[in-house]
Amino acid sequence: MSTTMQKIGIEKVKHSKIDQVDFDNLSFGSVFTDHMLVCDYKDGAWETPKITPYQPITLDPSSKIFHYGQSIFEGMKAYKDTENKVWLFRPLDNFKRLNISAKRMAIPEIPEEYFMEGLKALVEVDKNWIPQKDGSSLYIRPFVFASGKGFHASPANEYKFLICLAPSGSYFSGKVKVLIEETYSRSANGGVGYAKAGGNYAGQFYPTQLAAEKGYSQVIWTDDNNHEYIEEAGAMNIFVRINDTLITGPTSDRILDGITRKSILQIAEDEGIATEVRKITVTEVVEAAKNGSLKEMFGAGTAAVISPIATFGFRDVDYDLPELKDSFATRLKKRITDIQFNRAEDPFGWRLEV
Amino acid sequence: MSTTMQKIGIEKVKHSKIDQVDFDNLSFGSVFTDHMLVCDYKDGAWETPKITPYQPITLDPSSKIFHYGQSIFEGMKAYKDTENKVWLFRPLDNFKRLNISAKRMAIPEIPEEYFMEGLKALVEVDKNWIPQKDGSSLYIRPFVFASGKGFHASPANEYKFLICLAPSGSYFSGKVKVLIEETYSRSANGGVGYAKAGGNYAGQFYPTQLAAEKGYSQVIWTDDNNHEYIEEAGAMNIFVRINDTLITGPTSDRILDGITRKSILQIAEDEGIATEVRKITVTEVVEAAKNGSLKEMFGAGTAAVISPIATFGFRDVDYDLPELKDSFATRLKKRITDIQFNRAEDPFGWRLEV
Repeated sequence: MSTTMQKIGIEKVKHSKIDQVDFDNLSFGSVFTDHMLVCDYKDGAWETPKITPYQPITLDPSSKIFHYGQSIFEGMKAYKDTENKVWLFRPLDNFKRLNISAKRMAIPEIPEEYFMEGLKALVEVDKNWIPQKDGSSLYIRPFVFASGKGFHASPANEYKFLICLAPSGSYFSGKVKVLIEETYSRSANGGVGYAKAGGNYAGQFYPTQLAAEKGYSQVIWTDDNNHEYIEEAGAMNIFVRINDTLITGPTSDRILDGITRKSILQIAEDEGIATEVRKITVTEVVEAAKNGSLKEMFGAGTAAVISPIATFGFRDVDYDLPELKDSFATRLKKRITDIQFNRAEDPFGWRLEV
Repeated sequence: MSTTMQKIGIEKVKHSKIDQVDFDNLSFGSVFTDHMLVCDYKDGAWETPKITPYQPITLDPSSKIFHYGQSIFEGMKAYKDTENKVWLFRPLDNFKRLNISAKRMAIPEIPEEYFMEGLKALVEVDKNWIPQKDGSSLYIRPFVFASGKGFHASPANEYKFLICLAPSGSYFSGKVKVLIEETYSRSANGGVGYAKAGGNYAGQFYPTQLAAEKGYSQVIWTDDNNHEYIEEAGAMNIFVRINDTLITGPTSDRILDGITRKSILQIAEDEGIATEVRKITVTEVVEAAKNGSLKEMFGAGTAAVISPIATFGFRDVDYDLPELKDSFATRLKKRITDIQFNRAEDPFGWRLEV
């Protein structure tokens, strides 16, 4: 490990731009730190990563990223505790999922130590950028795309793997009102829905715009066959609480294997909350809303952690969820963020100190 | 129209690189002409296109093309006849489809005259690059991608529309052996399969690699529900000839509305060939292969025009198609390319002189 660490070249900026940043008023993912990690794939191999000043990327107009959508990414965060120690949360899981996405999109897999050592080195270099205000963190964006040239519809022969860092505030604000979607779909059986591939996100924007015109901020995705099963909430996994049972759909080739999702399941079990991983029908959710057994719905993902849903719409009827004093969402979010920020024990071994 | 034409600024190269190109040995889409068209979307509007030397594009690492897959494209060709007149083939159909793709991917639509006048001006500037060797042509690649910055998963606020030109030889060579795919899928009901969106292509590469390991050069896509219907061949529409009837699947939200596809249907009708546009089952194709009524299968698309299939594989059995002296594929390809190259009458009004 240390051998590789020595190999990662670091070119630091001459003048940091950190003084220009208002850390009390950060939005999500719109301010970037001084440095980035860059790693090139050429001649059949990934070259040693290097840390450089954050800077533009120059590409040929025929680079395949512009034409054939070979792009994957991850979302992670770094947290700084009150003693200024820096923590990552389950980074190896992000690494593994990046390579699962890579395989599906015919992108060459990244060596583990290039990712892990590169990540730690970059966060270390820019650790002064990690916000400490409650609700803020350093958002980490590893991504890989096809840089190779040519209009032939085939995998590229060159790729770029980068990690960029963005000190960020909350992803969502306010109450979330979602629409159960019955026309458009996010993914196909045998498709790429389980990969964090760029195209999965672009395909969601138009249906989300249509929902927004009706007053909803996100779409609840259902299966593309009969729109019978609830699958994801926007770009997040979805949880439903019926009476005192917390339910989420099983992962599949249509559903992302979310790290927040599986962390929530484990914490819930640890807390003695009854959980079920099974298919959730639209019908049962609507029925549960009508008979009062639907207590909570929330999205789960790295960016927003847990995003409680206040209202869902289905076939022109809006169903409001109750406002609970002691919701699972609040309890689970506190527990997971306490672990992330080193404010609580980590019985699961999820934290990694940088 | 002429007003807009005057507005398109043209910055020509000082020295053409045309002398470096071996026009007798062109591959597909790997050599680019001296110039390109560039048009930027900023502050809610498309700016006037300009023609510049072919040159790299510089983007921020947070540009949404790298993360959320907002990218669409078209494939077209320019042809030069024996009198050195330059022709486009149904360009307005490409323009319309680009905007259909744009809408689905939440990309702002391109004004018609920016596309049409920009295209003609660019082809005019680089008309010396149009190959005249049989089977070669100038491949035209209009494309649009999200250049706006930020990690928020939402449509970008800035885009780039470019047209690049690549003098090209044939797309495929040799006999095409295809595999009917029953595990992976290309598109979902309610998805983006009908759009020429980058992500649709990236998702095909891995299943195509797996097929290649078994000796097949392309995959025949079937529906994602039961893999019961034949939908596309690689990145092309598919035609099946059973006895003397030419059949292709109906377009849908899963199938691209191919310009070659609809041109073939119209020519076939004009030639008195019986055509059917209806769903094609895998079962009937396999049965027809067994009983000898399956005469031809071919892919149809701009790049390869018509690509005859020699063999298809299904569940570990290969079915060879007969070698016909007077195939529909040969006859239809001759007719369509004769129209494209101005070697024959154009009763349909498809050609447009530049």
